[in-house]
Formats: sequence, C-alpha cells, structure tokens
Amino acid sequence: MTINVLTSAKVRRDLRENLKKDFQDVNFLFCKSMYEAKGKLSYADILITYGDDLDEKMIKQAEHLKWIMVMTAGVEQLPFQAIKEKNILVTNARGIHKIPMAEFTIGLMLNYVKKFRQLSNNQERHYWEETLKLGELSGKKMTIIGPGAIGSEIARLAKAFHMETTGVNRSGRPVEFIDNIYSMTQINEALKSADYVISVLPTTSETYQLINKDLFKAMKQEAVFINIGRGTTVNQKDLYQALVKKEISHAILDVFEEEPLPEDHPFWAMEEVTVTPHISARTDQYQPRAVEIFKKNLYKYIHKENKFINQIDLDRGY
Amino acid sequence: MTINVLTSAKVRRDLRENLKKDFQDVNFLFCKSMYEAKGKLSYADILITYGDDLDEKMIKQAEHLKWIMVMTAGVEQLPFQAIKEKNILVTNARGIHKIPMAEFTIGLMLNYVKKFRQLSNNQERHYWEETLKLGELSGKKMTIIGPGAIGSEIARLAKAFHMETTGVNRSGRPVEFIDNIYSMTQINEALKSADYVISVLPTTSETYQLINKDLFKAMKQEAVFINIGRGTTVNQKDLYQALVKKEISHAILDVFEEEPLPEDHPFWAMEEVTVTPHISARTDQYQPRAVEIFKKNLYKYIHKENKFINQIDLDRGY
Repeated sequence: MTINVLTSAKVRRDLRENLKKDFQDVNFLFCKSMYEAKGKLSYADILITYGDDLDEKMIKQAEHLKWIMVMTAGVEQLPFQAIKEKNILVTNARGIHKIPMAEFTIGLMLNYVKKFRQLSNNQERHYWEETLKLGELSGKKMTIIGPGAIGSEIARLAKAFHMETTGVNRSGRPVEFIDNIYSMTQINEALKSADYVISVLPTTSETYQLINKDLFKAMKQEAVFINIGRGTTVNQKDLYQALVKKEISHAILDVFEEEPLPEDHPFWAMEEVTVTPHISARTDQYQPRAVEIFKKNLYKYIHKENKFINQIDLDRGY
Repeated sequence: MTINVLTSAKVRRDLRENLKKDFQDVNFLFCKSMYEAKGKLSYADILITYGDDLDEKMIKQAEHLKWIMVMTAGVEQLPFQAIKEKNILVTNARGIHKIPMAEFTIGLMLNYVKKFRQLSNNQERHYWEETLKLGELSGKKMTIIGPGAIGSEIARLAKAFHMETTGVNRSGRPVEFIDNIYSMTQINEALKSADYVISVLPTTSETYQLINKDLFKAMKQEAVFINIGRGTTVNQKDLYQALVKKEISHAILDVFEEEPLPEDHPFWAMEEVTVTPHISARTDQYQPRAVEIFKKNLYKYIHKENKFINQIDLDRGY
C-alpha cells in the first residue's frame, strides 16, 4: 500500500525533488500551508509540519495518520492528548539548531563588543569615528543557563575566543566545553562574575519566569544578558527594570513573552536592548538538515524498523 | 645618567603610573601629542609615538634620541633616512594586533551573513521580520592574502567555525591553521572558490595595488572581499567597478587609499560596502599590551642587552 506524506510546512523545491527521487514508491502531497493541506489530512499517513498549525479536530480528521514530523525543535504547541490517544509517532528536528544558533550568539556578542551598530550608523552619516572604544571577547567570562547541545556548541566557540565558560543545569552534571558547572541551586554564584549570561532554557513548568529580578541583581553591572531560549523563561518586567536601573548593561533578546514583540513595547526603542525576531536558528541549511533527519526516519518507517531519530516522549513532551 | 622617556602618544593614566612605579630611575615626560612633546625633543633618549607625527627636522632636533618605540605596527610614515643616519633603534608593537583584528574580522563576517545591519534597521522601525534569510559560516571557504600572525589567528577562529582556510603568500610556505597554501603566482587558483577573501597585506613596494580587477574577476560572484591590511594594496577604482558590476557581492573595508575616507566617496552610501574607520585592531587591551612590550625592551635597554622585541630593520622598513 502506498504511503502518503502530506506537508503543511513549505518545503524547498530542490528538497521536494530530492525526496521524490529518493523515495519513488512514496506519494508526496506537498502543500505550502495547513490552509492548503487541510482538505488532504484524511489521506495522510505522515505529516510534515512546523508544529504550530495543528489542533485536536485535525488529528481526529487525519484518520490514517501514524507519524508527525515537526520541522523544528519546539513541540509545545502540538495537541498532545489527541496525539497520545491515537498513538501517533512524533519526531522533531532537534539537533540541527546548534550550529546556526551558536554562530548567531557569538555574532551578536561581537556585534556588541565591537560596536557594529554604531559603526553602521556612522556609515549612514559618512562619519569616520576612529576613536571609538572597542572591547574584546578574549579573556571574558560567559555563563550559560541550561546548556545542552546548543549551549555546548556556544561554549566550544567561546573557548576558541579564549573565553572562560560556566554552565548552570539542574543536576550540576558536566557538559562538554564548559569549564565550570553549577547546579540550579548555586545559580547566583555562577552569575556573579559573568560578562555574558546566555539563556538557552526551553519552556517547561520549571523554567517559567525562572530568570527574574533576583538573578539580574546577582549579575555584574557590565553583564550582557542574552536570551535565545524561550521568552517565557524570563520575567520581562524585571528585565526591563534591571536595564533601566542599570543593574546590567545590555540585553540581546531573540525571544519574548509575546511574539512578535508588540510594536509599542519599550524594548524596541531602548539603546540597551538588541531585538531580533526569534531568528537565531534560521539558516539556509535548516531545511536540508531537517529533511535529512526525516529521510533517515522515513527509511526506518518503510522498513518497519524502530529507534527513530528524535522521537518525542509524548508523556514528557520533549 | 638618568634616561629620559618622552611620549607623543597619549598613554593611559594607569599605565603611566605603572611605568613610573616599575622604572623609578627613569624620567618620564608624558605628553598627549607631538604638539605638546615637540619642545622637549632635545631631552629625549627614548620617544614613544604612534609613528605618524615625526619628520626629519624633529629627528635632527632630538639630538640625544637613541630609540623610537612605535605604539602600532605600521612604521611606513617614519622618516627612515634621518633615523638611519643617526642609527636610532626602532621597535614597534607588532604582534598585539592579532586578537582584536581576528575578532573584528570574524565579527564582521557574522554581521554580514546574519544580516545584523538589516535587523538593526528593523529594530529602529519596530519591525519583526522573522522570514529574513540568513546564512552560516560553517562549511564556507576563506582565502587569506598575506597570512602572517594576524591571518593565522583569523584562520584559527575560522576553523573553529568549520570553515576551510586557504592562504596566499610569496613563497607558498605553510602557515599554521591554513589548510591549503598557494604562492603569489597561483593567486587566481586560491581565489576562485572562496566565499570570503581577506587581505592582511602590509604596504610594501610589492603590494601596491596588488589587488586589482583581474583578481576581482577571479573571485566568485558570491564572494565577500575584506580588507583589514592597508588601503594602498587595493585598486579602489577596480573594487568599485567589481561591486557595481556585481562581480563580487560585498566588500568590508577597514582601510582605504585615503584616510579618513573622503565624505563624498561612493563607498559610504553603497549597500554592498561596509565601511569601518581603520579600527580593526582597536581594543581596550591595546595600550596595556603595547606598554608590556615597551617595558620588556626598556629593561633590556637599561641593562645594555640587545635582541630587542620587534626591532625594525631600517633597510627593509619592517
């Protein structure tokens, strides 16, 4: 029986052709959005989605659905209850984010310390300011809250820049490329001498607004706070106050409590804040790498193997 | 007899105090500029300068001068003939540039590939553009023209970013952290597949306008050309044409034929050009590192040792 693969995630043309070529017995129904895919849900054995366009009703409608491939890492918007009831396999694209996210993070740190924003404004005004004071990453200290694969990759690059790396996780277990590791109960100690504090925390019940005024108070006045994890892990009002009171010197924020960041939010206009639109993982290599994972899993699926790459535990939700 | 050290380079207060403390028998005449120092030249045994404020008349006036410490790497503006006639020792601060310059270069490459300039403009307009297409350094190719200590340090960082590194020098001798090395006669071959072409060439008679239209033609259309060496090594008209004709995609220029870059120069307003004001080596660690070299040499000078660190060959000019 032919396997039907439906996409509500828009897949790049070259990758679509590559999939059809590599799996000639599989029937691909490529759609650009759920709006377009909705009518075909009842045919789908496999759905490729970004994970933010599904509800319980659709899961019921997709009567043959056996596997959902989420083309991103965050699966928190999936209707888990309905998926569990039908025992649908869920996999994601975890692990492909670390290279672009680490490049993005180091890039924004250099952007800050080398004052590229000001140099760019100067260029617009044809202004040659050779007396600008610039710093270095070399010799500075970085503390990563919640280091996993992404944090470890950031730390690897930071060490190439001769930085000292510290990490904070639940258990205090060691992480590769992190010089000093602390458990969550010792977080203040881990923050106090950091020049850069980077959160890569995911959304869980334990991390909700974990980064609050007490932690900002524990940081140095010169500290730069960077959030590339999830906006919900930070108390944004506390962060705003910490910046206004100059308890820390700058925030680089790629994620927010509410996204897109509302147009009238003060962060947009603050010199002490760098706003980016939840884009740290974005790269032209994203879809090729995600499709690569899907192809390996599709091969296993066709050959009735198990041990799928990046299978989600439906009880834990990650 | 007391040694008199005169500065026409403005030295940071903490470093001035440190010098006086470490060399209590030396008489320091700290001035902020040559304008201020000029009247004291005839007392100076040693002069600390940035190397751009001296002429033959001053050398003659400085009748006791035995040593010029240039607080930068470029010594091309020194009045060499007059210095040679009086057999004055010249040293410079070569070697302290590699860390800031490599950070600056990698930073601007990330700035380009992650579109931080556009993201910064978006922030000014409170505009959330999550669909922006971003690239990666990972897997890309870099070719360095004239790699020495600085080029090798750039290559070291590039390799941490999983880039392939190629170098071009006179002899084709190997350089640390450079995967493939070519001699100058094979330069076209070294350029043809590079995503980033970086010149760290110094000013010599051999490098004048070495980078010209033939070399830009040898590069890929996607190539980004970066000059952190000297402006005179590039034919700027050819570079301008290569950008206008889209033979290459971008230029990041820290140095120019004429500096400051004239206010009406087209580079300022071109989207394909990133202009920075000869600032790649600038860092708050610059003076501490330069003074450290000076101190080591001053110790040798006092104790009548030789083998000075970074002694300039007055015949070769570097």
